[in-house]
Amino acid sequence: MIKVGIVGGTGYTGVELLRILALHPEVQLTAITSRKEDGVKVADMYPSLRGKVDLAFSAPDKANLTECDVVFFATPHGVAMAQAQELLAAGVKVIDLAADFRLKDVAQFEKWYGIPHTCHDVLEEAVYGLPELNRAAIRNARVIGNPGCYPTTMQIGYAPLLRAGLIEADSLIADCKSGVSGAGRKAEIGILFSEASDTMKAYGVSAHRHTPETVEQLQKLTTEPVSLQFTPHLIPMIRGMHSTLYARLKTDISNEALQQLFEDAYKDEEFIDVMPFGSHPETRSVRASNMLRLALHRPGNGKNVIVLVVQDNLVKGASGQAVQCMNLMFGLPEQTGLQHVPVLP
Amino acid sequence: MIKVGIVGGTGYTGVELLRILALHPEVQLTAITSRKEDGVKVADMYPSLRGKVDLAFSAPDKANLTECDVVFFATPHGVAMAQAQELLAAGVKVIDLAADFRLKDVAQFEKWYGIPHTCHDVLEEAVYGLPELNRAAIRNARVIGNPGCYPTTMQIGYAPLLRAGLIEADSLIADCKSGVSGAGRKAEIGILFSEASDTMKAYGVSAHRHTPETVEQLQKLTTEPVSLQFTPHLIPMIRGMHSTLYARLKTDISNEALQQLFEDAYKDEEFIDVMPFGSHPETRSVRASNMLRLALHRPGNGKNVIVLVVQDNLVKGASGQAVQCMNLMFGLPEQTGLQHVPVLP
Amino acid sequence: MIKVGIVGGTGYTGVELLRILALHPEVQLTAITSRKEDGVKVADMYPSLRGKVDLAFSAPDKANLTECDVVFFATPHGVAMAQAQELLAAGVKVIDLAADFRLKDVAQFEKWYGIPHTCHDVLEEAVYGLPELNRAAIRNARVIGNPGCYPTTMQIGYAPLLRAGLIEADSLIADCKSGVSGAGRKAEIGILFSEASDTMKAYGVSAHRHTPETVEQLQKLTTEPVSLQFTPHLIPMIRGMHSTLYARLKTDISNEALQQLFEDAYKDEEFIDVMPFGSHPETRSVRASNMLRLALHRPGNGKNVIVLVVQDNLVKGASGQAVQCMNLMFGLPEQTGLQHVPVLP
Amino acid sequence: MIKVGIVGGTGYTGVELLRILALHPEVQLTAITSRKEDGVKVADMYPSLRGKVDLAFSAPDKANLTECDVVFFATPHGVAMAQAQELLAAGVKVIDLAADFRLKDVAQFEKWYGIPHTCHDVLEEAVYGLPELNRAAIRNARVIGNPGCYPTTMQIGYAPLLRAGLIEADSLIADCKSGVSGAGRKAEIGILFSEASDTMKAYGVSAHRHTPETVEQLQKLTTEPVSLQFTPHLIPMIRGMHSTLYARLKTDISNEALQQLFEDAYKDEEFIDVMPFGSHPETRSVRASNMLRLALHRPGNGKNVIVLVVQDNLVKGASGQAVQCMNLMFGLPEQTGLQHVPVLP
Repeated sequence: MIKVGIVGGTGYTGVELLRILALHPEVQLTAITSRKEDGVKVADMYPSLRGKVDLAFSAPDKANLTECDVVFFATPHGVAMAQAQELLAAGVKVIDLAADFRLKDVAQFEKWYGIPHTCHDVLEEAVYGLPELNRAAIRNARVIGNPGCYPTTMQIGYAPLLRAGLIEADSLIADCKSGVSGAGRKAEIGILFSEASDTMKAYGVSAHRHTPETVEQLQKLTTEPVSLQFTPHLIPMIRGMHSTLYARLKTDISNEALQQLFEDAYKDEEFIDVMPFGSHPETRSVRASNMLRLALHRPGNGKNVIVLVVQDNLVKGASGQAVQCMNLMFGLPEQTGLQHVPVLP
Repeated sequence: MIKVGIVGGTGYTGVELLRILALHPEVQLTAITSRKEDGVKVADMYPSLRGKVDLAFSAPDKANLTECDVVFFATPHGVAMAQAQELLAAGVKVIDLAADFRLKDVAQFEKWYGIPHTCHDVLEEAVYGLPELNRAAIRNARVIGNPGCYPTTMQIGYAPLLRAGLIEADSLIADCKSGVSGAGRKAEIGILFSEASDTMKAYGVSAHRHTPETVEQLQKLTTEPVSLQFTPHLIPMIRGMHSTLYARLKTDISNEALQQLFEDAYKDEEFIDVMPFGSHPETRSVRASNMLRLALHRPGNGKNVIVLVVQDNLVKGASGQAVQCMNLMFGLPEQTGLQHVPVLP
Repeated sequence: MIKVGIVGGTGYTGVELLRILALHPEVQLTAITSRKEDGVKVADMYPSLRGKVDLAFSAPDKANLTECDVVFFATPHGVAMAQAQELLAAGVKVIDLAADFRLKDVAQFEKWYGIPHTCHDVLEEAVYGLPELNRAAIRNARVIGNPGCYPTTMQIGYAPLLRAGLIEADSLIADCKSGVSGAGRKAEIGILFSEASDTMKAYGVSAHRHTPETVEQLQKLTTEPVSLQFTPHLIPMIRGMHSTLYARLKTDISNEALQQLFEDAYKDEEFIDVMPFGSHPETRSVRASNMLRLALHRPGNGKNVIVLVVQDNLVKGASGQAVQCMNLMFGLPEQTGLQHVPVLP
Repeated sequence: MIKVGIVGGTGYTGVELLRILALHPEVQLTAITSRKEDGVKVADMYPSLRGKVDLAFSAPDKANLTECDVVFFATPHGVAMAQAQELLAAGVKVIDLAADFRLKDVAQFEKWYGIPHTCHDVLEEAVYGLPELNRAAIRNARVIGNPGCYPTTMQIGYAPLLRAGLIEADSLIADCKSGVSGAGRKAEIGILFSEASDTMKAYGVSAHRHTPETVEQLQKLTTEPVSLQFTPHLIPMIRGMHSTLYARLKTDISNEALQQLFEDAYKDEEFIDVMPFGSHPETRSVRASNMLRLALHRPGNGKNVIVLVVQDNLVKGASGQAVQCMNLMFGLPEQTGLQHVPVLP
């Protein structure tokens, strides 16, 4: 059994890790830390876990994380970088669900996250945790920077087109929509029920942290300079992310060939579902599962190709992907503990 | 492996059966019928099942249901009674999620459902499928009348009090609230998103079919005549049921003793969670799981005892309970295939 | 024109006052205070008011409230009692939307609100602001304690029955449901969208502040001792309140006579709509309006009479009712500025 | 007083017309037709109108529409074209909220709406009812084709840029999001609460009727060929539309100049609110009002200019705009009866 520790388990990615790991056949939940909730039983904070998770939160110092095989950081940006070195030295693998190990470019990290990066050598070693594009490296990684939710959809959607050199890399437009859980479990007016339901809005249109992360990764797939307009929106649903990805074809190609390109790219992927050409995936079709579904459109057989991508922002967009990485790092079948059927309705 | 057939799998209880049974380790989905959708792949109608369920709907006559070990009827009232006899004769067990085999009193059935009951002998044999109150009979049953969603919460909540003779049986008030999925997957104006969201209402206040069903069952638990005021409400949520059960104590009793009464009554139950006295269970704490949670209140230590009960109306209130019955009928551990962790948030 | 000041206009009752008063033909908005938002334009905080309200928030000390004709307190409990005396001395009328002047029984106030009442003489003078039951006194009042949202529905629903001596006053059960805006505009985890949508729960079942307020008022209508079980629930909708009121008839009476009793009681009321016997009012049927709708039920012509009451908790349940009181206090037609058509869908 | 008739008042644009016209100071509601609801009181179907609208639906033949001054068609496509001629001959003005008189290009109409256009001469005379771009013609019109909801946002958002020749007209991308009420009040599975809440999806991505309408209108503003990618999405909210409009600048221009361009274009418009540069308008900021708000973005001061536009799809996107046209046609101040303050929260 893999001894698992979770740092900062009180947020949504934390409780989602618990939901998944509680039934993971190869995992033994060993420790979960929260300074604020020290001593509180996890199931008292999250009644959904009553009878499923028997752990109590413990203060970081009491948690003996060094006895774990792997530690997930479901924490604000900046926490993992402070503790990673000690854990790695003790032979503990690290998976950070925040941004500390996502951006290789330290200057970019410090510009967008507003804190100094204090852990350059671990950052150098860290592996970007998107299995479908980076599986081999993840298998051998000691430390993972788990991708952001939006970047996951954009990379899965654009990758086959960029790799094949079919689209203008310098004029990508990603119009993305996220459920409110993506904003986390914070006491903020803007995400109150009475503020965020029965309404919607865009946010961070002029600048968003997920742009540099996505561009850094997409640039690996093409020699042409990548330029991306990423526009996030807040949608009145709890879970779910829908990315509408626009690209302009450089060369003519049949819709059949486009569809084939994506089916070939993802034919061996457990968690990527290429739907029939012209489909309209719904976010609920992946609710509470690690699936990502996508479909291609080519209006009027013109220059625009549109990729519609849906995922559950808390699963494939966060905690499920992190467990998928863990499975790879420990030589388990990739889908272990991740075969939930989406909850619909 | 248990060969399972589903009649009428296009509604919410049908797709929920598929969500549960697709991962049930002892089940082989054999047939699913729908006259209207004959030939359509289940996963084309419910993309959430892509890669999980490979069956196509078939017309009833083509379905060879007699080769199944058990057939679930996720159909409108009146369908199961027309086919049960033939299936039983062929050695197939029957579980009806509709009302055909719930009410022993034929006159009551015909009054409340407006159709003649055409299958009296099967009705006589049928067992009411509420495991926590009727487990032994279910184990030996060939045909099950699966309880209504509301009646499940009312029986679990009132049973310990009635059995102990603690409350006035003739003045029960059950104020119940249901998510919209309880109304089924029908093209009706009243349950459109734009009609049923951001609003609520009561319905069927003067008379509702679940009253006679509940009274018939509760009456088994006490010699005093049971009288129940059941008031259902439609709440803008997809899944979830919250019953607020009022009863008046006949004899004084300490809150500790009340709590103990419920903890003793359900201490061996996998799917009943008696929360600490004075808790306020949320419907989301059981979302997409077979758990039912309840908590006791005794305002001002007065005559009123209040039982708060929550369940997922599609799982413990319908399809999950039906699978729980199936497990008992086939000698499997009761929780087989039903150990989902509730989805929160 | 009536010069109006608002103290603490940043919450939902505050912005709702602004929505109503911005188009009130006899009102001139003169000052709105907020220590925290001093200098911020109201329309910058609430873009819905752009072009409709030109005021900026000002710190209380700068606001010259003594130049107003009336001041509304849309503040936490305890604020109005600290400022009422000075305003009254300056000839300014006071309408408090919080609880400072609701409960005549000081001991009860201090028990339930946990703060000492520092303004007994004003409390003595204060008038309970429920026009339908207290119109004459409101007309001559200098200071109003505006009713709580739940108490409004319970009093309007029970009053005709209690006055007529038709029901057992000592066994009232009010099962009430409120939209989330009733919890106010506070940065609290429990009312985040991801916590409060697609789910529901009861709260404060064992004890709630609105019970003593309601009992104190209901007791004025009958010589028999009133006992009330009030059970509030949180529902995933922004606005709207639905109260399901149970009472037991002492004497037999026809349903026609019951209906007539209510129609007579409210026949001259602009804002009370007695619907046909057996109706099921929806909260959306009064959304964003000052209407309160109710309907009677008598299941099985038995001892239980049920009154279903709906209102918009922010309008008839708070700010609209306060403006209705203001109209009375200044001799205006009661419906002035309050004739909005409910927003449906 | 203007005598107003409404044909087909049972849908959402119909009830929204009633909500607005019931308080319109210059309007007398004279007739409302519905074959199916003949004789039913409007307020019985829409309790929100109890006490506000006293009319009953009448069958078309009984309605004496020819005695009205103006008739609104809140009907499916194809109805208005069948009755317009007779009404015009009788001196009755016609405002069609459907598509019969939107597209001047008959071939386009017949291609996209799948029915023959039977009323060419009226179509020729018809005026496109977008006051901000077509006010003079509307003033003198006898028949109005009221714009579609999406096209309204796209035209208001792109018009200043196209007129000034600042953007590449052949690469417009409009990513639009609509509340579910935009789908109308039809008994369809896809828009049930349990199907459309807590989820989202795109639809009609490859082809949508609002594209030709929008292009036909935008083409009037520029000599360059307009090419538009319009992508609609269904969002779990009742009302509200958010359009995210992308365009590429041909010439460099300062953000200040861009902002000035829009402020100048709409400085005299009652119902267009140009928010500060870089704002993120919310749909709720216009809920239940005729306002349209927009804001400009220029990420990284690059080639992309983004216009965020919000409106209430049932008001400025439909019924409010129709009343705005009526006011112009009858020489009334444009904002008469349309000054609602948006409902927030």
